[in-house]
Amino acid sequence: MTDVAAFSFDKLVIFGVGLIGGSLARALRERSEVDGARTVIGVGRTAASTARALELGVIDSIASLDDDASLRTALAGADLVLLAAPVAQTQPLLERIAPFLDAATIVTDAGSTKSDVVAAARAALGGRVGQFVPGHPIAGRESSGVDAALPDLYVGRNVVLCALPENTPAAVEHVAAMWRATGASVHEMTPEQHDRVFASVSHLPHVLSFALVEQILNSPDAALKFSFAAGGFRDFTRIAASSPEMWRDVCVANRVALLDELDAYTAVLARLRAAIEASDGAALEAVFARSRVARTEWQAQRGTPANAAGDAAK
Amino acid sequence: MTDVAAFSFDKLVIFGVGLIGGSLARALRERSEVDGARTVIGVGRTAASTARALELGVIDSIASLDDDASLRTALAGADLVLLAAPVAQTQPLLERIAPFLDAATIVTDAGSTKSDVVAAARAALGGRVGQFVPGHPIAGRESSGVDAALPDLYVGRNVVLCALPENTPAAVEHVAAMWRATGASVHEMTPEQHDRVFASVSHLPHVLSFALVEQILNSPDAALKFSFAAGGFRDFTRIAASSPEMWRDVCVANRVALLDELDAYTAVLARLRAAIEASDGAALEAVFARSRVARTEWQAQRGTPANAAGDAAK
Repeated sequence: MTDVAAFSFDKLVIFGVGLIGGSLARALRERSEVDGARTVIGVGRTAASTARALELGVIDSIASLDDDASLRTALAGADLVLLAAPVAQTQPLLERIAPFLDAATIVTDAGSTKSDVVAAARAALGGRVGQFVPGHPIAGRESSGVDAALPDLYVGRNVVLCALPENTPAAVEHVAAMWRATGASVHEMTPEQHDRVFASVSHLPHVLSFALVEQILNSPDAALKFSFAAGGFRDFTRIAASSPEMWRDVCVANRVALLDELDAYTAVLARLRAAIEASDGAALEAVFARSRVARTEWQAQRGTPANAAGDAAK
Repeated sequence: MTDVAAFSFDKLVIFGVGLIGGSLARALRERSEVDGARTVIGVGRTAASTARALELGVIDSIASLDDDASLRTALAGADLVLLAAPVAQTQPLLERIAPFLDAATIVTDAGSTKSDVVAAARAALGGRVGQFVPGHPIAGRESSGVDAALPDLYVGRNVVLCALPENTPAAVEHVAAMWRATGASVHEMTPEQHDRVFASVSHLPHVLSFALVEQILNSPDAALKFSFAAGGFRDFTRIAASSPEMWRDVCVANRVALLDELDAYTAVLARLRAAIEASDGAALEAVFARSRVARTEWQAQRGTPANAAGDAAK
């Protein structure tokens, strides 16, 4: 991969060494396509998570967020910095990093929302925001944490980059080359496009799934209902086992786009409700048939990804 | 199984030899626990489906719905009749069968709704409705048709019977024994309880899943959205690939209970919408955390059923 060779990934600093950050480190170290990440430094919110990452060999050393000297040493000469923490932490993390950041270091992130991350980066980095290339790898698993990290998590997956006007083409290409080296396909969108697309196909389904479990919990015959729930319920609510903290942050961060999608969805539901109330079988069947065709075609075009069994979390 | 021996399943007539009816026939013939179903007669809407069932050895012969003599021969001395057709066909089927039904034959069904099936049975059978024991095996697969039928489809699954006041205990036990012989657990509910429970954990999720695909199809950037949809979307919309005809019938048949659940769900969504609009992270996290605990406990209690990979259709 010539574009990998053109950039250095020798020193990588990861804030948040869980599934996403840990899998990036493992991909860059373990995949034969790339000779990089000779030094990976992890910074975590809890000592336990970084200690575990060190124990697993995913990182080489740990830096402390609370210690200026440790942070300065970690960031000196870093080729790339990845933020893989909940999106609400983007601004405080960037503010903390800024004083120690070399001018040549590129920073990117893995957040599920982008407009808010761009605003946070502008607020934290000011005139140096060109060093920050916003990104979003579309990969998750039901399990989280560094123990779930895999070197091939990103193979065949999509990564969206939302390049800023302030980014140099070289900075964007540096991040793109890193993700391509993990086996991912890299796409560009504006932050607004990104947030609308993922509000629709990811954030809204999570809200809808959490809402169904909440509704059943609130009903007087909750236990009876749960005891007869079967495969349809299981698939529909698998994402209701996702991280409450992460999805709280996503909902707040992507509020505007999510409310638009939620309102459009509520309008479709109202239409279906009217058809059910009127026993309008033809109207219901038309919608169901259209949905079935679209869902079946989507599945056929998508094929089976490398981690089909494990990517339920996004 | 002593209760199996007490009842005869020697002659079985199945209306609708697809996944559900075919799997019952295969279970009664192929499972070593039961010595029954020496004669299985299939009646189908299309000649092709019954011909295929015959070719596969799932049934021994075919009777024609349009031919009085054929139907009379098929039903003479039948121990059990199973209706495994879309629920809207219950009344016309029972009206067609009634003139040829022996007084000792027990009729049951596999419909996903029960209040409407009970009304149809009363209308069609009148004073002989005691011969009809309403039932619902909670089992499905993404694939349908007799080729998907399995002898162990019902192992570890639930079957709900909604016994009528007119049913004798022996008639109910006959049907219960048949389902237990397939490896299923048999439960009793009233038709109203049944319809409320399945409106909540099955019918509503199907409507919500179809609605999400419909909403995306209606949006101007549908292609972009589908191209970035990943694992969360995949699981949430798996049931949107279900049969439009079956779900049209279910929605109309279970209209009253489904509208109640849909309205309760819409109220939960409105509450979440308000929290998102107010950036009330604490309120969102409380709901998400509660849902996650309930969903995780449900999965733990349920364990992994024998056909875990294949029961997405119900």
